[in-house]
Amino acid sequence: MQLLDGILQRQPRAIARAISTVESGGSQASSLMHDVFSHTGKSLIIGITGSPGAGKSTLVDRLAGYYRQQNQTIGIIAVDPSSPFSGGAILGDRIRMQALGTDAGCFIRSMATRGNLGGLARATTDAVAILDAAGFDKVIVETVGVGQDEVDIVKTADVSIVVLVPGMGDDIQTIKAGIMEIGDIFVINKADRDGVLNTEREIESLLSIVERPDGWNPPIIKTVATQNQGLEEMANAIASYKQFTDVHPDNARRNAIAEQRIIELLRDRLLAIAIERGIGIDGIDQLAAQVAAKERDPHSVVDEIIEKSGISAK
Amino acid sequence: MQLLDGILQRQPRAIARAISTVESGGSQASSLMHDVFSHTGKSLIIGITGSPGAGKSTLVDRLAGYYRQQNQTIGIIAVDPSSPFSGGAILGDRIRMQALGTDAGCFIRSMATRGNLGGLARATTDAVAILDAAGFDKVIVETVGVGQDEVDIVKTADVSIVVLVPGMGDDIQTIKAGIMEIGDIFVINKADRDGVLNTEREIESLLSIVERPDGWNPPIIKTVATQNQGLEEMANAIASYKQFTDVHPDNARRNAIAEQRIIELLRDRLLAIAIERGIGIDGIDQLAAQVAAKERDPHSVVDEIIEKSGISAK
Repeated sequence: MQLLDGILQRQPRAIARAISTVESGGSQASSLMHDVFSHTGKSLIIGITGSPGAGKSTLVDRLAGYYRQQNQTIGIIAVDPSSPFSGGAILGDRIRMQALGTDAGCFIRSMATRGNLGGLARATTDAVAILDAAGFDKVIVETVGVGQDEVDIVKTADVSIVVLVPGMGDDIQTIKAGIMEIGDIFVINKADRDGVLNTEREIESLLSIVERPDGWNPPIIKTVATQNQGLEEMANAIASYKQFTDVHPDNARRNAIAEQRIIELLRDRLLAIAIERGIGIDGIDQLAAQVAAKERDPHSVVDEIIEKSGISAK
Repeated sequence: MQLLDGILQRQPRAIARAISTVESGGSQASSLMHDVFSHTGKSLIIGITGSPGAGKSTLVDRLAGYYRQQNQTIGIIAVDPSSPFSGGAILGDRIRMQALGTDAGCFIRSMATRGNLGGLARATTDAVAILDAAGFDKVIVETVGVGQDEVDIVKTADVSIVVLVPGMGDDIQTIKAGIMEIGDIFVINKADRDGVLNTEREIESLLSIVERPDGWNPPIIKTVATQNQGLEEMANAIASYKQFTDVHPDNARRNAIAEQRIIELLRDRLLAIAIERGIGIDGIDQLAAQVAAKERDPHSVVDEIIEKSGISAK
């Protein structure tokens, strides 16, 4: 309860501890999130993804700066799942903290590691809910990659933004319809480079084949984040889409997001229960060594864990 | 058992049906994989990932062609998780099937969709095991993105290859240490473009900060896949790494892979059990609508599903 109070008072240390708790997962995380949930629903959640090298971090930092000038408070979660081993994201985090972190109206945290037992998408959604409960006006979730995890994370935002850069040439094809379909707003960053018009035309042609059930027409905004250009247009586009969804709520999308959230939570909780009751994390290590040595088959190992945990007894 | 026989006789239809079965997940998939497992372990599994636009599909097709000339049989799994909604990968699959698929020594299948209840990493590993059991000499797993899912998938291969292209400039930094650490071999494709030396130097400098516990020194191979250049060097590098690991097996890596496999399987199986016993897939839809409308909190919904499935009764 003390931790919840700290979150609601927007104390950076309490928020950081709460996010570490949800990263670890387990029953402590579950009971914390139970308490947090009733305080959520006020922040606007902005998801930002896009191609590698598109300058997303700078764009997010400058957009946060723009909002701060409007006296809006900002929470940022930077997700970097492509860095499973090294502390790359942590380092970047520290550098960004120096720029933004001295301001009490702005909180930034990166999430790089996915624990063996916890899904990154679930932990990120929990972290966003914590920032929401803490009362930040805007919560920005920024992801580095273009994989399924990133798409899952950005899809759950109130507004999803896809960032591209000029001069990707035919490589934009590889960004593909999948990521095009999640974009409520498209941003061409580094728009002072050659090839802006080509990129814009390519986005338009890809968008023309995507049919949105809600009838929204995603705008294409040009920014040069390093020079603070286009930030107002970007903020206005975000506000416009928010207004649009207030009038035309996309219930199918909201339901799909909620379903995904339930399933993520359920998977994590069940796994924790089975390991706790069935075998313990040391037991997993031993079984893994047997599977690696081809002494046992992973499917029969899983049968055994489920049996031992008492789940299949019913 | 008929399906298993078809797999062992390398019948394309049986293989395709088996992969569809593991994509759906559930107990049918589990019992099939149980039978399949004892026939695995003979193929060399080659994982290929890298930056968008690096020409991975062409490289894989041409490498497969090279192996076919050596009378090696080839199975290919192309993973495209960035395409969650549209049939992009399926279309690409058909085009590639026309080029490769008339040859009985070559099987290609793309996996684009991740079902609500099934993990893509788990389904991909199952599909690779099916091709292994079918007796293909080489099984190539190719992923499109650079997210966590892709890293997880490629990490489980016997040989992991990272493909880059010249002229990525400072964008290579965004590919990051995470993906550098999984590469046993690096390939610079489109090596007839400007900037090859720069890219090579960048890879070398990134590799110099990665410490490999096994002492292997990842080679950097240059290819122009569209002109069949460098394929022999690539195949030789793959053979060299295979020889190296035969002499210096990396048990820690093998154990970590097996542990991840067990956990993936366990998560999928538990989720299927809980939904089947606890609530049904229609029940999830109803609860999701309540959560979306903020009438209920997802954590208490998950508590309820676990309670109803009898798992928490113990």
